[in-house]
Amino acid sequence: MSHVDGEGRARMVNVGDKPTTRRRALARCRVTMARKTLQAIVDNEIAKGDVLSVARIAGIQAAKRTSDMIPLCHPLMLTSVDVAFRVEDASILVEAEVEVADRTGVEMEALHACSVAALTIYDMCKAIDKDMVIGDLALWEKSGGRSGEYHRAGDGEHRSDFAT
Amino acid sequence: MSHVDGEGRARMVNVGDKPTTRRRALARCRVTMARKTLQAIVDNEIAKGDVLSVARIAGIQAAKRTSDMIPLCHPLMLTSVDVAFRVEDASILVEAEVEVADRTGVEMEALHACSVAALTIYDMCKAIDKDMVIGDLALWEKSGGRSGEYHRAGDGEHRSDFAT
Amino acid sequence: MSHVDGEGRARMVNVGDKPTTRRRALARCRVTMARKTLQAIVDNEIAKGDVLSVARIAGIQAAKRTSDMIPLCHPLMLTSVDVAFRVEDASILVEAEVEVADRTGVEMEALHACSVAALTIYDMCKAIDKDMVIGDLALWEKSGGRSGEYHRAGDGEHRSDFAT
Amino acid sequence: MSHVDGEGRARMVNVGDKPTTRRRALARCRVTMARKTLQAIVDNEIAKGDVLSVARIAGIQAAKRTSDMIPLCHPLMLTSVDVAFRVEDASILVEAEVEVADRTGVEMEALHACSVAALTIYDMCKAIDKDMVIGDLALWEKSGGRSGEYHRAGDGEHRSDFAT
Amino acid sequence: MSHVDGEGRARMVNVGDKPTTRRRALARCRVTMARKTLQAIVDNEIAKGDVLSVARIAGIQAAKRTSDMIPLCHPLMLTSVDVAFRVEDASILVEAEVEVADRTGVEMEALHACSVAALTIYDMCKAIDKDMVIGDLALWEKSGGRSGEYHRAGDGEHRSDFAT
Amino acid sequence: MSHVDGEGRARMVNVGDKPTTRRRALARCRVTMARKTLQAIVDNEIAKGDVLSVARIAGIQAAKRTSDMIPLCHPLMLTSVDVAFRVEDASILVEAEVEVADRTGVEMEALHACSVAALTIYDMCKAIDKDMVIGDLALWEKSGGRSGEYHRAGDGEHRSDFAT
Repeated sequence: MSHVDGEGRARMVNVGDKPTTRRRALARCRVTMARKTLQAIVDNEIAKGDVLSVARIAGIQAAKRTSDMIPLCHPLMLTSVDVAFRVEDASILVEAEVEVADRTGVEMEALHACSVAALTIYDMCKAIDKDMVIGDLALWEKSGGRSGEYHRAGDGEHRSDFAT
Repeated sequence: MSHVDGEGRARMVNVGDKPTTRRRALARCRVTMARKTLQAIVDNEIAKGDVLSVARIAGIQAAKRTSDMIPLCHPLMLTSVDVAFRVEDASILVEAEVEVADRTGVEMEALHACSVAALTIYDMCKAIDKDMVIGDLALWEKSGGRSGEYHRAGDGEHRSDFAT
Repeated sequence: MSHVDGEGRARMVNVGDKPTTRRRALARCRVTMARKTLQAIVDNEIAKGDVLSVARIAGIQAAKRTSDMIPLCHPLMLTSVDVAFRVEDASILVEAEVEVADRTGVEMEALHACSVAALTIYDMCKAIDKDMVIGDLALWEKSGGRSGEYHRAGDGEHRSDFAT
Repeated sequence: MSHVDGEGRARMVNVGDKPTTRRRALARCRVTMARKTLQAIVDNEIAKGDVLSVARIAGIQAAKRTSDMIPLCHPLMLTSVDVAFRVEDASILVEAEVEVADRTGVEMEALHACSVAALTIYDMCKAIDKDMVIGDLALWEKSGGRSGEYHRAGDGEHRSDFAT
Repeated sequence: MSHVDGEGRARMVNVGDKPTTRRRALARCRVTMARKTLQAIVDNEIAKGDVLSVARIAGIQAAKRTSDMIPLCHPLMLTSVDVAFRVEDASILVEAEVEVADRTGVEMEALHACSVAALTIYDMCKAIDKDMVIGDLALWEKSGGRSGEYHRAGDGEHRSDFAT
Repeated sequence: MSHVDGEGRARMVNVGDKPTTRRRALARCRVTMARKTLQAIVDNEIAKGDVLSVARIAGIQAAKRTSDMIPLCHPLMLTSVDVAFRVEDASILVEAEVEVADRTGVEMEALHACSVAALTIYDMCKAIDKDMVIGDLALWEKSGGRSGEYHRAGDGEHRSDFAT
């Protein structure tokens, strides 16, 4: 009946013919904030609690619920989710790594985990700093699947952040 | 029993003593992409469907489920959610405005709606452009509640984007 | 920013200016099936269990999650959900009645409860009867709110079913 | 401990011994409405937005969450979901096709997608037409799995609708 | 149509006539485990992470989703959720306190939060101790609403645990 | 980036290298209550409905949503869930048995099903008995997977309950 709809009709890609392979994706973003906000996080003085612990759990749970939130994502049985943070000068880097053995990749799961972890940081600190900005949310690495390896060629600054 | 836990224990703020007032928040973010990706969106040639229609629905639904995703957010009966897009040179601006009549604000709902709308854009276009970046996710306006009005003093570039 | 989107952009109606009033909606549908299927339900001989008990719970739970499933529905704190069945010749009538005290009505909650209760009947009996049909899903009564009372003028057959 | 419960206890069928095979199901329903309502949908003049775009997304997302809503359904990793519409004289036909590679079929997922897409049409148009009726919700085709092929022998009218 | 169903039909109590008042409930349970397991928790040596931090978040989130899990519970907009732990000789006491301003109480929310926090402790430690037992899950205090105050008269041991 | 986080960071265990095998878990708990409460359940005189039917459905659905509730649990496609009850002198024994064919076990799913079934019993009877206690929630059997068989060595009383 597809001819009865116009152009642009949304569809979930049919992945039934794709092979089940191990797939992995790594995404990152950055939460920029006032230095005193960052210091309060590091010193565990935020009234709502230990910010990075809560943000990590939120990111892990978000990865598992990506297909609930992103309409055309396939549901996937994730085999691993890892969310990490690096405290920098006036920002926190968020990194999420997700793995699966399935017919489609986990880029969205990794991006979604980063995004919800970052939003949780915002939520916990917004009483003292509403000016925080979440940026640089991007896919950094992807492996497995037909399209092969992907490594972000992105700006040098971020690369060196994570190369050490 | 609160004394038996150490510092940094997570807690949901008790808003039981706050008055029920009308509250509103407006958040924005930007999805930067290759010009040909943007053109494909505008020309409605993305294989997964009409990108902005799907992203809008995803954003609206995400606003409603913010307290499921952000651990310390209160559940709220939103009275309005609006998600809008502006196509620019090599990016799409995403804006979400949320309203409620309750004891706590809707900043997180507006930010979450922007974030999921932006991730949906990424999901629908990632087959042709994995280098897209989601950035500048921030609160722009907030009204209602004890803390009063908030207007982002942010950089001039964004301001002018939306001032026209 | 609404001017940047074309016609037809989806939006959740802003109900912030509506008064909070008690509202009620009643919806019905009919599951038509083979007589032997109906007999097996009545005799509690369906292998998956007591069909109407399970369908009732499914309908009640569905009412509560309507805004998760129907994109532009407002979340609502339902004060009452009631799901009832009537066994007829070769069909089961399903009725759901929902109440709330809020700014918008509960038509969708009542319809959604009927629909999921009916689908649960289908699910539990499909091993013996895949030809079942769910029909006549409609709003029958609505009260409260600005638009006033609504009573379905529908066909006589249904009316009399429920008038007794 | 099964002997301690009476007859009719609900159970999820144990599918652990079934082979993993590709399975597909196709379901349909019809939303009957006033001609002017239908015209407003076609002309994209419904205040809540582009009805069929929103309904399609709602149907796709509903397919993915079928096991949340229908109590005895197994969770399944769907490999494809497609929702289509056909505008007729005074109704819209809704069709959903779902695929999976698993131990059990996707009839309920296809039926649930149709049902939620139809309810979304109702929700978006109810401000102008509360008399709409959702009917003829039925399974039309099923393949894969032990029970073999299923093709609905149903009434000719529907058949010809879709045969062209 | 209630007369067409037999006895025992499940129903959500109609709370539409109850007044909106502030309500509070406090529940507790105990996770009993081997001393070495408890020591590993206290020393933060469990491989899956900081057990009590994760369990606290899980409990808070569970409170918010009680009406999704317990079929006849009303959805409620919680104004406060607090989950606390006390490490004892060979067990961890879990306590959850929940508040709301609504038409029905939050006993189930407090019990559900305790239960999910305790299950999370089990999940994180089960690699080293499958013999853990969750017990003594009970309501301890309740205030607000027509039925008045409730204080558990329970055994002295527990009382004194929490009286200090 | 794992070196940038301190000890105790939460992580979902990576099960990508584990073989897919059939796994099974059986858990139990006990709801202790006043004899008259138990009698009302048995006589189906509880106002909210047939307690054990509702509790069974709640338990089955909870098993399917375990990874939503327990933060570090992997999502799993359960192949079987069975919830059973045994009425004793002044308590109801709850038993849940869950199966899967996957890379990790279903202990948490069985425990979660027991817990939510027991909480549902509490919810349905709390109007007449707030003193009920849920206890003895424990894993009883586990098979499949690298760690081999597990049989609870627990107290004799429980063992004999279920050995007959």
